[in-house]
Amino acid sequence: MKKGDFTLPGEAGYEALTMRLAEKWGADVIRDSDGTKLSDDILNSDYGIYSTICLIRSDNEFAKQNMDKLQQNFLMSFPVTSTGDTVEIKLLDRYFTEQFMINENVNPYKYWQVFDRTTGYEVPISNWSYDPDTKSVTIVEADKWHKYTVNFLAIRLWEEISMYNHITNDWGDKEHLMAVDPRYPEVRENILKWLDDWCKSHPSTTVVRFTSMFYNFAWFWGADEKERGLYSDWGSYDFTVSPVALEAFFKENGYKMTSEDFVNGGLYNQTHNAPSDKYRKWMDFTHRFVVEFSKECVDLVHSYGKKAYVFYDDSWIGVEPYSPEFAKIGFDGLIKCVFNGFETRLCGENPYIETKEIRLHPYLFPTGLTGEPTFAPGGNPKLDASRFWVNVRRALLRKPVDRIGLGGYLHLVEPFPDFCDYIEEIADEFRTIKELHGAGKPYTHKGKIGILTSWGSLRSWICSGHLHEHPEIDLTNLLESISGLPFDVTFLSFADISVFGIPEDVKVIINAGNADSAWSGGDVWANPMLVETLTEYIANGGGFIGVNEPTAYNTGDSYFRLSHLLGVDKDTGNRKCIGKYNYDITPAGSADGCISDASVKAATLPKNDGLFVLNKDVKVLKDDNGSVEVALNTFEKGRCVYMSGYRYSLENTALLYELLTYAGRYENPALYRSSNPYTECAYFEESKTLVVINNTESDAQTEVNTANGKLSFDLKPFETVIKKL
Amino acid sequence: MKKGDFTLPGEAGYEALTMRLAEKWGADVIRDSDGTKLSDDILNSDYGIYSTICLIRSDNEFAKQNMDKLQQNFLMSFPVTSTGDTVEIKLLDRYFTEQFMINENVNPYKYWQVFDRTTGYEVPISNWSYDPDTKSVTIVEADKWHKYTVNFLAIRLWEEISMYNHITNDWGDKEHLMAVDPRYPEVRENILKWLDDWCKSHPSTTVVRFTSMFYNFAWFWGADEKERGLYSDWGSYDFTVSPVALEAFFKENGYKMTSEDFVNGGLYNQTHNAPSDKYRKWMDFTHRFVVEFSKECVDLVHSYGKKAYVFYDDSWIGVEPYSPEFAKIGFDGLIKCVFNGFETRLCGENPYIETKEIRLHPYLFPTGLTGEPTFAPGGNPKLDASRFWVNVRRALLRKPVDRIGLGGYLHLVEPFPDFCDYIEEIADEFRTIKELHGAGKPYTHKGKIGILTSWGSLRSWICSGHLHEHPEIDLTNLLESISGLPFDVTFLSFADISVFGIPEDVKVIINAGNADSAWSGGDVWANPMLVETLTEYIANGGGFIGVNEPTAYNTGDSYFRLSHLLGVDKDTGNRKCIGKYNYDITPAGSADGCISDASVKAATLPKNDGLFVLNKDVKVLKDDNGSVEVALNTFEKGRCVYMSGYRYSLENTALLYELLTYAGRYENPALYRSSNPYTECAYFEESKTLVVINNTESDAQTEVNTANGKLSFDLKPFETVIKKL
Repeated sequence: MKKGDFTLPGEAGYEALTMRLAEKWGADVIRDSDGTKLSDDILNSDYGIYSTICLIRSDNEFAKQNMDKLQQNFLMSFPVTSTGDTVEIKLLDRYFTEQFMINENVNPYKYWQVFDRTTGYEVPISNWSYDPDTKSVTIVEADKWHKYTVNFLAIRLWEEISMYNHITNDWGDKEHLMAVDPRYPEVRENILKWLDDWCKSHPSTTVVRFTSMFYNFAWFWGADEKERGLYSDWGSYDFTVSPVALEAFFKENGYKMTSEDFVNGGLYNQTHNAPSDKYRKWMDFTHRFVVEFSKECVDLVHSYGKKAYVFYDDSWIGVEPYSPEFAKIGFDGLIKCVFNGFETRLCGENPYIETKEIRLHPYLFPTGLTGEPTFAPGGNPKLDASRFWVNVRRALLRKPVDRIGLGGYLHLVEPFPDFCDYIEEIADEFRTIKELHGAGKPYTHKGKIGILTSWGSLRSWICSGHLHEHPEIDLTNLLESISGLPFDVTFLSFADISVFGIPEDVKVIINAGNADSAWSGGDVWANPMLVETLTEYIANGGGFIGVNEPTAYNTGDSYFRLSHLLGVDKDTGNRKCIGKYNYDITPAGSADGCISDASVKAATLPKNDGLFVLNKDVKVLKDDNGSVEVALNTFEKGRCVYMSGYRYSLENTALLYELLTYAGRYENPALYRSSNPYTECAYFEESKTLVVINNTESDAQTEVNTANGKLSFDLKPFETVIKKL
Repeated sequence: MKKGDFTLPGEAGYEALTMRLAEKWGADVIRDSDGTKLSDDILNSDYGIYSTICLIRSDNEFAKQNMDKLQQNFLMSFPVTSTGDTVEIKLLDRYFTEQFMINENVNPYKYWQVFDRTTGYEVPISNWSYDPDTKSVTIVEADKWHKYTVNFLAIRLWEEISMYNHITNDWGDKEHLMAVDPRYPEVRENILKWLDDWCKSHPSTTVVRFTSMFYNFAWFWGADEKERGLYSDWGSYDFTVSPVALEAFFKENGYKMTSEDFVNGGLYNQTHNAPSDKYRKWMDFTHRFVVEFSKECVDLVHSYGKKAYVFYDDSWIGVEPYSPEFAKIGFDGLIKCVFNGFETRLCGENPYIETKEIRLHPYLFPTGLTGEPTFAPGGNPKLDASRFWVNVRRALLRKPVDRIGLGGYLHLVEPFPDFCDYIEEIADEFRTIKELHGAGKPYTHKGKIGILTSWGSLRSWICSGHLHEHPEIDLTNLLESISGLPFDVTFLSFADISVFGIPEDVKVIINAGNADSAWSGGDVWANPMLVETLTEYIANGGGFIGVNEPTAYNTGDSYFRLSHLLGVDKDTGNRKCIGKYNYDITPAGSADGCISDASVKAATLPKNDGLFVLNKDVKVLKDDNGSVEVALNTFEKGRCVYMSGYRYSLENTALLYELLTYAGRYENPALYRSSNPYTECAYFEESKTLVVINNTESDAQTEVNTANGKLSFDLKPFETVIKKL
């Protein structure tokens, strides 16, 4: 039984429980949570104290007196079709007016834009006017039967995370918290003053846990509960707009960000879509501002001898922990809430921070993600915790973090002693794994996997948000699989490889996603030089794995730009009369011994309509009734793999592992690999320790190839076996 | 038992059978078929005689002596990726060399083009050369890693229909027939001479049945049986190319058709894809030539006192029976082989011809479409005939043809007396239906359905080819349903409605198909005026039914150009973070009484991913687990219907009928409608006769609303009941 590296959520009124579990779980730190307080008894204990603060919604009195300095964003009105030469558009129609109000403080004619969406042209300012009484824009000399929209600046009246908690938990007439925008000097001044006061009045706090910094991810709500979630993107910068920021951008760059640069025909700038250069410029501009002011806040915290940690969620926009600029802020720790392995790697791989902590699930809350009971009658939080832990554990075996913790209402765990025992077990397992890493890296194949996207390293180990929110994103699923596999991973952007080429240590590149997405690449594939770079890389022996609609860009003669290398292309409907090669299935065994028929058979990949094979040399390993699912092709010295799509599962992970070793020509692919796909292992060479894990709820038997022969293991459900070799 | 209007395929050696069945089936005409001859006994009988001729493959000796005047076409070589600065491309690689040879008779540098498909640029002539010894093009100064193709002119060595019959029936060393191109004056001269001789030597022939005229639909074969069908399009003009035609086009228009205008990056000009203006110009140019020379041939036939009929299949390219120019040829009859109702209407609706004949299925052949036995042990040709007849019969009730007939080897029917009896029954049913039409039109709803496509009336009642060849084309399926419904139909092109507006008698417009297809429209939807025209039409009370990806053209803010009127749009993957309205299902009953819940429930529509509903006013009648299938929306006075896709079935036909009456606001939609969706009826007002048909293999009960109340019917499988009211 080890101690430390564990953050416990304490709760006033439950001091004895807090102390008992802190002891049981080996906690060294006690934290508060949204909705809980720590009592003096706890604060004055010997434990470190994390205190959660959210600077932008902390001083609601100030916010109420500075409504013109609340956070803002551009909204597009819902479209209205003209039935005459005049059109009236109610701007906030269908928007949740407890969240949004029209910004009437600044000149609408300066910031707003009106569009004829039937022609795509902007309507001249002379042809529209805003009426503050009716909150509507009227367009004159409209074209009959055309569709019009207005981009306008909205002030947000309710900080979204507290709005969500308020409405979900039915907090009634509890005051709505508002978010102020630190782009305004008065706001920055007030925040620093508030933070200074706060530090003074919280002497027991050892770590200030920022939740997160200034700007929330984009989250637009609708008035009608049937369309509550009008827009939600964990990585979007829509909420960073204000007149003062727009002016500063113009001053810096000499050109303007227009409302349409944000609104983008109602698509906004979703992280999943390939970003424009202009939007990237805005992101960078905002990031530098956030870094600068975050540093002021962190310096202030440090001046009180406290540490500053940042929570990597909620208002994390502009923080960008994978940008080199991020290091300048000086945070001491990064805390990520994790459901999955890729999030664990997201935290653990960060190169700019000293202390990395993950907050495990389940959150100590009566209900879970979909309203199902967790810490409530009918719940089984131990089972929930086990299921999350198997996701996290396999990633921790590849790359450790420094600390783990929980969040929520501690008193809820009392009726679940099996949960409390299990957390004790997990905490110990975590400390053991951390210790093994301390002695030296686990055995990892030589040569990296390169993940090629529009975002590159800025979105290392994550697409946008949690896996359960967008289970259809192939790359998130791939990252989840890879998070527990014995490969090093690097994240490359198209711009990176255009400028610097493909790094020499990259053995296989993955491009995965649907057409026009940031993950597949979109218009960037118009560039023949990108095609050249990758073709040369493959010709020289590089591996390439394309998933779903990789390299997609319609040139007429092909849809996937690298179809001739992948051996597979997609008929989007314009090849109905063009013949397709009538392939036979090739047994996996023929592929250099890397791929097993059992793995091919066990895998379940999404069907992708319209795929076709280019010629007789392409080897189709798996299909669904004529619809290709896995195909191999070679070009010169290189090996290419096509997959119709990817969803995380243990069976698919096993196949992916094999396809990676095939495409990347990795040596000794079976060394320190567990033979049963429901189990995995990691071998820590320095400490000569083999860790074998059972990722399922059933007993499992497996064999592991070691340098000295095969070892057999019998594992209980979810078990971790640690064996000194 | 009536007589006449029936064409029987006679067969030499089976004279008694021929005469017996001619009597039994009430034939007035005896024909030959491909592979059969008529004996003198038959020729000298009192029956009319159809003789089948195919002018372009009739004189193989001439063809062999004029190999430079064989038919030609442009081919694109398969792409080759450059691995250095020189690329060699074997032009005929993967093509069936019994079908194609390279045309070395004309200057390659004049007609061929070489493309860098990685950049899309043409390679200058100075950088490539053709070597007749290796049959390959070599490109110098190539860009390394780029993909190159060559467009070249190929001569076709084997007329495709006889090639297909030869290979399918294993005709061994029987001489390959070649197709000559009448663009060459010598060829025209020889054809006319041959035809003149033929007429002289066939005094018994009363009708010359052309099969068809000069150019076959496009059909490229591959060398490998695994890719035998490299390209096949029933409506394509690819096989009309020759140097002499290209020169004539240039002379007429002052600009050239290039190889790439035909090759189109390897997509060629598939009828299913939205056509370019230049390709339409070529079609028109070719059509006028075909009309002109066909007229010479027909005049010659007429000079011998014979009639000239044309078979509307095989080498029909350029004939275009729905073009007004077609009338100039002077054909006396049009013969269409029919599997389905829409083909029956295609024949019956033709406005330019006197005698319309359909050739029924099954063809008198040992095996059917997919190799299954028909007139062979294990076959059930009576059942086959019944199944085809129910398709045809419902269309004949709406619009008659003048004659029916069969084709193939007559002796094969001998072991199937039930088939012979059934044909007798069908022939009588046909004559009765024809007679009813003779007295006056069946009851039809007032106001037309307009089918809006790129092709308009030129492709009336057909997309391209048979339903079983492309069962995924929504519009073919819709036409099959509509072919037996009591509506008049008009075919409109986008150009038609841009110039002339929407005809006043059109009550509902259908736009159906996938994005970029000729059926949905493709780029034409970029034009805001088209949007205006349709919006105005709908606002004024017009109905609009959009199916699959109607009006699709991505403008960023929407994917369907009329999404705001249809109430439905499609997320192609770029709206992952944009909320979708969370609709409830609306009972069909609320839609003005036109639509029944039973029909909605019984229908089965294809799933279409990414569809979403625009707002709360849209009524979703049917979905599949959150994926919209049928939705209604209104705009001003107009009604719009969206369907996720369409496949022909009796159940779907019933729903379609109701959606048409809803969208088109048809009066008395239930009058003369059969209550059981497996049955249909037609009421001939002048003759006060109600015809009720059972379209299934089971007994069926139904009720029909007449002007004087409801009538009940009990129908046997496939039965036709004719009742005087």
